[in-house]
Amino acid sequence: MASIHFLKAIEMGIDTHQEPVVYMREDCHICRAEGFNSNTRLLIKTDTGALITTLNVVKSDKLQHGQIGFSKIAQQRLQVSQGQPVSVGHAPLVESLSAVRKKIYGHALSDSEIHSIVIDISKHKYTDIEIASFLSICAGGRLNTDEIIGLTRAMVDSGKHLNWPGSERVFDKHCIGGLPGNRTTPLIVAIVSAAGLTIPKTSSRGITSPSGTADTMEALTRVNLKLTKIQQVVEDTGACLAWGGAVNLSPADDLLIRIERALDLDGEGQLIASVLSKKIAAGSTHTIIDIPVGDTAKVRTQADADRLAGLFTQVGNACGIHVRCIITDGSKPIGSGIGPVEEARDLLAVFQCLSHAPQDLRARALMLAAHLLDLARQCGMENALQQATELLDSGRAWAQFQRIVEAQGGLKSLPDARFQIEEKATCSGVIQAIDNRKLSRLAKLAGAPIDITAGLRLHANIGSRLSAGDPLFTLYSESSGESDYALAYYHDNPDIFEIGEL
Amino acid sequence: MASIHFLKAIEMGIDTHQEPVVYMREDCHICRAEGFNSNTRLLIKTDTGALITTLNVVKSDKLQHGQIGFSKIAQQRLQVSQGQPVSVGHAPLVESLSAVRKKIYGHALSDSEIHSIVIDISKHKYTDIEIASFLSICAGGRLNTDEIIGLTRAMVDSGKHLNWPGSERVFDKHCIGGLPGNRTTPLIVAIVSAAGLTIPKTSSRGITSPSGTADTMEALTRVNLKLTKIQQVVEDTGACLAWGGAVNLSPADDLLIRIERALDLDGEGQLIASVLSKKIAAGSTHTIIDIPVGDTAKVRTQADADRLAGLFTQVGNACGIHVRCIITDGSKPIGSGIGPVEEARDLLAVFQCLSHAPQDLRARALMLAAHLLDLARQCGMENALQQATELLDSGRAWAQFQRIVEAQGGLKSLPDARFQIEEKATCSGVIQAIDNRKLSRLAKLAGAPIDITAGLRLHANIGSRLSAGDPLFTLYSESSGESDYALAYYHDNPDIFEIGEL
Repeated sequence: MASIHFLKAIEMGIDTHQEPVVYMREDCHICRAEGFNSNTRLLIKTDTGALITTLNVVKSDKLQHGQIGFSKIAQQRLQVSQGQPVSVGHAPLVESLSAVRKKIYGHALSDSEIHSIVIDISKHKYTDIEIASFLSICAGGRLNTDEIIGLTRAMVDSGKHLNWPGSERVFDKHCIGGLPGNRTTPLIVAIVSAAGLTIPKTSSRGITSPSGTADTMEALTRVNLKLTKIQQVVEDTGACLAWGGAVNLSPADDLLIRIERALDLDGEGQLIASVLSKKIAAGSTHTIIDIPVGDTAKVRTQADADRLAGLFTQVGNACGIHVRCIITDGSKPIGSGIGPVEEARDLLAVFQCLSHAPQDLRARALMLAAHLLDLARQCGMENALQQATELLDSGRAWAQFQRIVEAQGGLKSLPDARFQIEEKATCSGVIQAIDNRKLSRLAKLAGAPIDITAGLRLHANIGSRLSAGDPLFTLYSESSGESDYALAYYHDNPDIFEIGEL
Repeated sequence: MASIHFLKAIEMGIDTHQEPVVYMREDCHICRAEGFNSNTRLLIKTDTGALITTLNVVKSDKLQHGQIGFSKIAQQRLQVSQGQPVSVGHAPLVESLSAVRKKIYGHALSDSEIHSIVIDISKHKYTDIEIASFLSICAGGRLNTDEIIGLTRAMVDSGKHLNWPGSERVFDKHCIGGLPGNRTTPLIVAIVSAAGLTIPKTSSRGITSPSGTADTMEALTRVNLKLTKIQQVVEDTGACLAWGGAVNLSPADDLLIRIERALDLDGEGQLIASVLSKKIAAGSTHTIIDIPVGDTAKVRTQADADRLAGLFTQVGNACGIHVRCIITDGSKPIGSGIGPVEEARDLLAVFQCLSHAPQDLRARALMLAAHLLDLARQCGMENALQQATELLDSGRAWAQFQRIVEAQGGLKSLPDARFQIEEKATCSGVIQAIDNRKLSRLAKLAGAPIDITAGLRLHANIGSRLSAGDPLFTLYSESSGESDYALAYYHDNPDIFEIGEL
């Protein structure tokens, strides 16, 4: 019924992050006729696509008559070219929002309601405030087990699916995170694939942390691989260590995670669905979940960890994936290096069984690899741990890691940071506690993970006895500004390392 | 510790509605040094003020080196002038967000927690998604009575307070809304102030409705009055009928309402706090609350209305204001005119006791005026209704209304709409039901309340017997485009009027 209005698209040169925005002149006849104002939700259409956006009205000197400006993400999502005609109208009602309101009013959601919400989110039909509303009302344990199962399935349905011809069983691992330096994944993948398991591992980059597995692996080799390349690597080696971002396994989840981070929410239902949906979409049939527990880790109490582990297992069963949760010590950093290059140095040292290799990282990787082997073969943990240790000590895991890296693009040499500053203990005593969150922030302020050499190297960990003047850590960065900024933060937060007598 | 960064402010010419945005060049040294990205929350400071905003990064040709662009609302809130130096840094942590998270995790909030949330919102420290999160988690009956009381008090504390020297008791009225044409307020105010009650009424404009009391009154006289002028009018006449927007009684509530509307949420705790806090801040000691109940009204069942009435009374008592709730019939539109000018015509007809005056509007206004008189004097409803009727029929209420209008700026004459289209019944029968929501939308599509003459006039209501071809309503608008648009909506929605045999 409504008349159709055409305008010519131009790029506005404004980055509005993930929220697509279009810009129209305040005197535009369409705004007047349709009653558009700043914040009106619009449906923009081309011959080939459609996008829901938010309107910002601009002064008349910012655009010519007949033009509509696109923010960066709006232009990318609709794939419009300069000068292309687009039609503009009111955004249609988003039906699934009535299900969100139902949840707000205290009612459980059916599978089909959750499905419609997730599909609409993945199609970018929700505004940020609508996503925030949905996430808030689902957090705090407000999703029951059936709803978490529904959410997991809906996320799987909303994205791509991978499959691995020739591998009946496909393995995976995930860590709930929160421990700086805890880079066990490349070790585990090399060990279990050397033992014959198929483990096509895709990982994320660090967003709130100083490095993700993809960042650390990128210091060593190429990780931004197309799907066909990933499939080739897995066919050749039984494994890969690639960046998951290029694969688009769960578009809805990526949108939810962005708002979850902005709100600093950790909804357990959301977390479980996010992790398991990506595993299932990636074609995994068996996975272990590492849940570190500690005062400054993501999961803070044993009771929370037990509850989370129970839910993971239950939801996994319902969705057809074998899940084993391992609750681990999350009280302190793992390994010595924090940041892409420094973590990569630790990995190489463990792989090559060098004498300075961090033993805590080695032990943790062996234990988790053993859980995967036991999950695959029911051989018992003692036997599995022995197998994993033999694979590492014999150099077979290192050879397998080199095969994977070679298939992905070859091993890079690790660069050194421009600025290296050693900080010393200011008093004598034993390290009683380390604040994982603040330590991560320190490494981020130094420039990690964007500068791959940035980060830090610990010279001591919880339990180390130090004399005043002993080296505590070395800070690495690429600019004096960042190094000053990070050290100022360190001096403002003396509780990052708690040194005292036992 | 962080270095201070200065940039020169320039107006960007972009209207970002209520969310303040600043724009910085992608190659800006400050973005690089501080790690700012699009969506980073920034604290912008001048010598005299500070504002938290969201960053959008722009291409280098959009700004000169050393400049920072301001969106319209950002410029207005910080009151920066062209070229003024401002400092830029990371926004500080908003402490009260931890209380929001506490609520998300299912815990009730203390008075001081609610207080800190409301104060931070009123100081524009929350992003839209943070406000959305808070509102969603408080909706659906999740605020207990103590929390609603806390929220009401916090809202009162966050804004201005009015007082009325010489009036020990100050009266007010409020309608929960949802019924098109239900413009009783000017009648009630004139009747009870003619009886000697002090009733300084401030009203809102229609945002989701085709007219607010302020819009209808503005068709008749000036309503955008400064506080000193309002006080003068009340001193002279015992009453006023002004727009509340200029008075800034509850800045937090205005911010909450904007997001509530965008989410289409009607949290009862939020509603009660919003209504009562504005009454208390306006210095009222006694108020009636009209709660219309009907299938397409805001409150849909008698049980919901009873619950809401109980909460209103309880919260009012705790906050020191006498509240009487009146649950009324919300099944159909009231009066014949919908939209500012058409409602004003109905008002004048009722005041002047003209034969064509809508009797339902008259009866409803008399009943509610009687409740106010009884609340003031405990004279019994029968007696009160008789008093109210006498005041209206004797012309004393009309004379009092003219006094108020004269004090505010004099009576305007009502203009006619350019386009007037009569729609006829397409079949014979009795009107069984009218969809209030869709009828309101029809009047809005015609241009109400922005075009004051736009809207419609009903020639029949529920219970009217019609023959095919009898006039159903006349649509008024100022442009043929809007009139076409509205009529297309009418023809697409045949259920607005349900005509059939009883």
